[in-house]
Amino acid sequence: MSSNPIDPLRRQIAELIVVRASGHLDDQQRRYPRWELPNSALRRLLHNGVGGVILLGGSATELQQRTRQLQSWASQPLLFCADVEEGVGQRFEGASWLVPPLALGRLHRSEPARALALAERYGRCTGEQARRCGLNWVLGPVCDVNNNPANPVINVRAWGEDPGTAGALAAAFQHGLNQVGVLGCAKHFPGHGDTASDSHLDLPVLPHDRQRLDQIELPPFQQLIEAGIDSVMTAHLLLPNLDPERPATLSPTVLTDLLRRQMGFRGLVVTDALVMEAIAARHGPQEAAVLAFEAGADLILMPADADAAIDGLQAAFSDGRLPMERLEEALQRRRQALAKVATTTTAAIASEDDRELERELVAACSTIQCAAGISASSGVNLIRVDGIFPCPALSGDAPALQLPERLGLASVVIHGQGVSPWQNNADTPLALERIGSGPVLLQLFVRGNPFRGHRDGREPWLAAVRQLQRLDRLAGLVVYGSPYLWEQLKAGLDPEIPAAYCPGQMPEAQRHVLTTLLRPAEASAHNGEFTD
Amino acid sequence: MSSNPIDPLRRQIAELIVVRASGHLDDQQRRYPRWELPNSALRRLLHNGVGGVILLGGSATELQQRTRQLQSWASQPLLFCADVEEGVGQRFEGASWLVPPLALGRLHRSEPARALALAERYGRCTGEQARRCGLNWVLGPVCDVNNNPANPVINVRAWGEDPGTAGALAAAFQHGLNQVGVLGCAKHFPGHGDTASDSHLDLPVLPHDRQRLDQIELPPFQQLIEAGIDSVMTAHLLLPNLDPERPATLSPTVLTDLLRRQMGFRGLVVTDALVMEAIAARHGPQEAAVLAFEAGADLILMPADADAAIDGLQAAFSDGRLPMERLEEALQRRRQALAKVATTTTAAIASEDDRELERELVAACSTIQCAAGISASSGVNLIRVDGIFPCPALSGDAPALQLPERLGLASVVIHGQGVSPWQNNADTPLALERIGSGPVLLQLFVRGNPFRGHRDGREPWLAAVRQLQRLDRLAGLVVYGSPYLWEQLKAGLDPEIPAAYCPGQMPEAQRHVLTTLLRPAEASAHNGEFTD
Repeated sequence: MSSNPIDPLRRQIAELIVVRASGHLDDQQRRYPRWELPNSALRRLLHNGVGGVILLGGSATELQQRTRQLQSWASQPLLFCADVEEGVGQRFEGASWLVPPLALGRLHRSEPARALALAERYGRCTGEQARRCGLNWVLGPVCDVNNNPANPVINVRAWGEDPGTAGALAAAFQHGLNQVGVLGCAKHFPGHGDTASDSHLDLPVLPHDRQRLDQIELPPFQQLIEAGIDSVMTAHLLLPNLDPERPATLSPTVLTDLLRRQMGFRGLVVTDALVMEAIAARHGPQEAAVLAFEAGADLILMPADADAAIDGLQAAFSDGRLPMERLEEALQRRRQALAKVATTTTAAIASEDDRELERELVAACSTIQCAAGISASSGVNLIRVDGIFPCPALSGDAPALQLPERLGLASVVIHGQGVSPWQNNADTPLALERIGSGPVLLQLFVRGNPFRGHRDGREPWLAAVRQLQRLDRLAGLVVYGSPYLWEQLKAGLDPEIPAAYCPGQMPEAQRHVLTTLLRPAEASAHNGEFTD
Repeated sequence: MSSNPIDPLRRQIAELIVVRASGHLDDQQRRYPRWELPNSALRRLLHNGVGGVILLGGSATELQQRTRQLQSWASQPLLFCADVEEGVGQRFEGASWLVPPLALGRLHRSEPARALALAERYGRCTGEQARRCGLNWVLGPVCDVNNNPANPVINVRAWGEDPGTAGALAAAFQHGLNQVGVLGCAKHFPGHGDTASDSHLDLPVLPHDRQRLDQIELPPFQQLIEAGIDSVMTAHLLLPNLDPERPATLSPTVLTDLLRRQMGFRGLVVTDALVMEAIAARHGPQEAAVLAFEAGADLILMPADADAAIDGLQAAFSDGRLPMERLEEALQRRRQALAKVATTTTAAIASEDDRELERELVAACSTIQCAAGISASSGVNLIRVDGIFPCPALSGDAPALQLPERLGLASVVIHGQGVSPWQNNADTPLALERIGSGPVLLQLFVRGNPFRGHRDGREPWLAAVRQLQRLDRLAGLVVYGSPYLWEQLKAGLDPEIPAAYCPGQMPEAQRHVLTTLLRPAEASAHNGEFTD
């Protein structure tokens, strides 16, 4: 750490940078050391004025300690944010993990008032728990309209599949956040719902013209702006009809002309992570930050290299490429946002009310298609998950494992890094002799793009369900996550087969669905080793 | 919670009970709700005088908070203990996870002075980190002599396979603990090393007479007693030659005549967990506690029902079955032990010295059998683990996954709840078409009883290694954990096949072995998704 005084301009610029850190306290616990700065670098950057941190990883209790530690390294109040779009427990264990927003979007079709009330409680619960963990800025609500079921990156994170639903529920969520003094963020402007490629890996192109955007993509953002949303996050999308050259994140047409002037947004504009391939593959870290700022952004999220981003901005302000008023404006917006946040810390993250909300959301948003009890006393509990390192939905005492096991079913977990259950036959894709004999309870944990397989490309679950039905071996079916997959599978299902759908994957979702589908479980003599 | 004053006798008895709690703060985070009391019960029991807590689960940072919380519910200083036999990181993420003790037992054969020095640092590191987390009582060292490689419960947790090694290293460990003001515990008296059944599930019988015990089992305990060990934990073992009726935990002959009178131990005698089947299947929770106390125990660990244990003891003291002097004696020993402990709290759990010790132990105790580089650029990284929920050795960025994947090998993880890789053929047991084509790097994470399989009974790894060798597809072999399995597999291995053994399973062990066996890894473009 240099003991030289930091150039005041450089320090001001640093305030506008948001760097990534693990929620764990120790460097060795970082899950993604490539993305998460080590403590030595964080300490130096925060000491030198960096103004925000985005956190991922660790438990809610660790996050409480972590935010205090990081704040102690800074000489000014920091913005602490996280992608907690589905409750703080989505990212930080021990807090409430709520059903994905699209579950309320679906509920809104039949019970709009209830869905709106739940969305507001959802926002309040998220905000309160965020605050208790030391976060003051929730990177949500997602305001994208998910009108493309194949969307690999938004999907069930959206609040609706039409602009009215998405806007109304996102505004209710934001209202809940604001009640407890936590900042929100409408994302991903101008709308990421109709893309089929993944901006983490590539730059999606949206062919829509302004008229179409006005109909579908923009209304939820407009509604949130009018509701006083604190910040808007930009999308790494190319919209050739608006700006044929620059993706939205770097486009003055999109950020300044459209968002600021025409839509009247006066809060903080923050980029999506500049380290994402859609940006990083095209621009160096210095130029990416300058282009974003030039386009109208106030905060630079996760630059590929924070020092380089500051260097680039410093040079641009010094040589007049960027006017100093833009710096003043951005700093002023950041100060105003920080002035709104409440601070508290307490040991207990989730209240009894929060736990009740978790349960109520699961119950309100699940579908029990056929509740005929599963009475098998042997057979297979076949579970499909994306991956196991980590697998937040499953642990040793997850209801999805324990409840069928108590009936006598043997759990077999299929995942991207396991032995393949597939054989090369379109009609009988499951190699059943690898899995076991007897009736099969099939539990599919699938989100996002329904048939995305990790190693096998596309997993043929429709054919596998048909195969099991034909053999009279399908004891039951549960889909956790994707409504699109559920609708596909449900269509061909024998109506007498016990089946259910829950938009959430959390233990509470498993418990809710399985206690309905399975016969009351006997108390088990053992539920895991207790000690050495 | 009753507001009635607690009977003073009842409160004194409660001091001698050690209950089990999760290291997490929130009830919902408990991994084993059957064994771990909910906070409401903990709060009531501690308020009513219960004097100790054994903790498992949660990170080291959470444990810091948790011990403070539990202490705040009590009106007197508590004993906080945990089974941290292999560093605090064995049980609490973020602290140092060290190679198992038997690794130093093996090193002691060739480098006794180095092994002893490392064992003392091992104890100091464990004690310091325990103290920083709020623990004041380490349930170690294991003093059992592991002279039975088939032992399913002690195995690599022992410090030696002969009494001299076990005693010398265990005493060095205890010396390290005491230097930092943390209590130790010699276990499992009178020696659990020569058993082939698991006392968690059944009551093992040890046929040895006193002469044999004097030769093998007792010397390490005698050495620790002379070195001033603070506590001794009893074994749930039947020794018909000493007491044909009662297991050691409940035997006056073993605890009072042998341990106290003949061996001269004056510290705390604590039972092993009374909830274990070896005891709980034979006695109710009231009677088990009374029998243990009657036999000579001072502290009752993890009774199946704490209230019932207190009821039973209260009745036994009231009606004269147990003399009041025994209560006074036990309380006095507990006070003396607590008077020895140091207290500190600090945010950082592991120091740089601790990290250095982790690395040094791995390097000192690993065997690189053949360091010929593995240069495969495609093929399979076949990993065998006991289970995946949880799997402390593996996470998304574990070197055992990442380093081979960077070379181009596809990871396939075999575990007790996965699709079976086995076919019914003794000579070619691995169904290779399920696993993939090309050379196979085989990494076996096996501890304890080497061939214990979860679902498949005994996994035929010796035949599988021969099968891969015969097909010229064995690119390399690593065993993490069991020296017995390693010795078996090594015997038939082509000496030109890259192969290594490490007694530890932690990421540092994987890094050490694989950076030697694999060609230098290229920097990878991606190491996991970084955010949504």
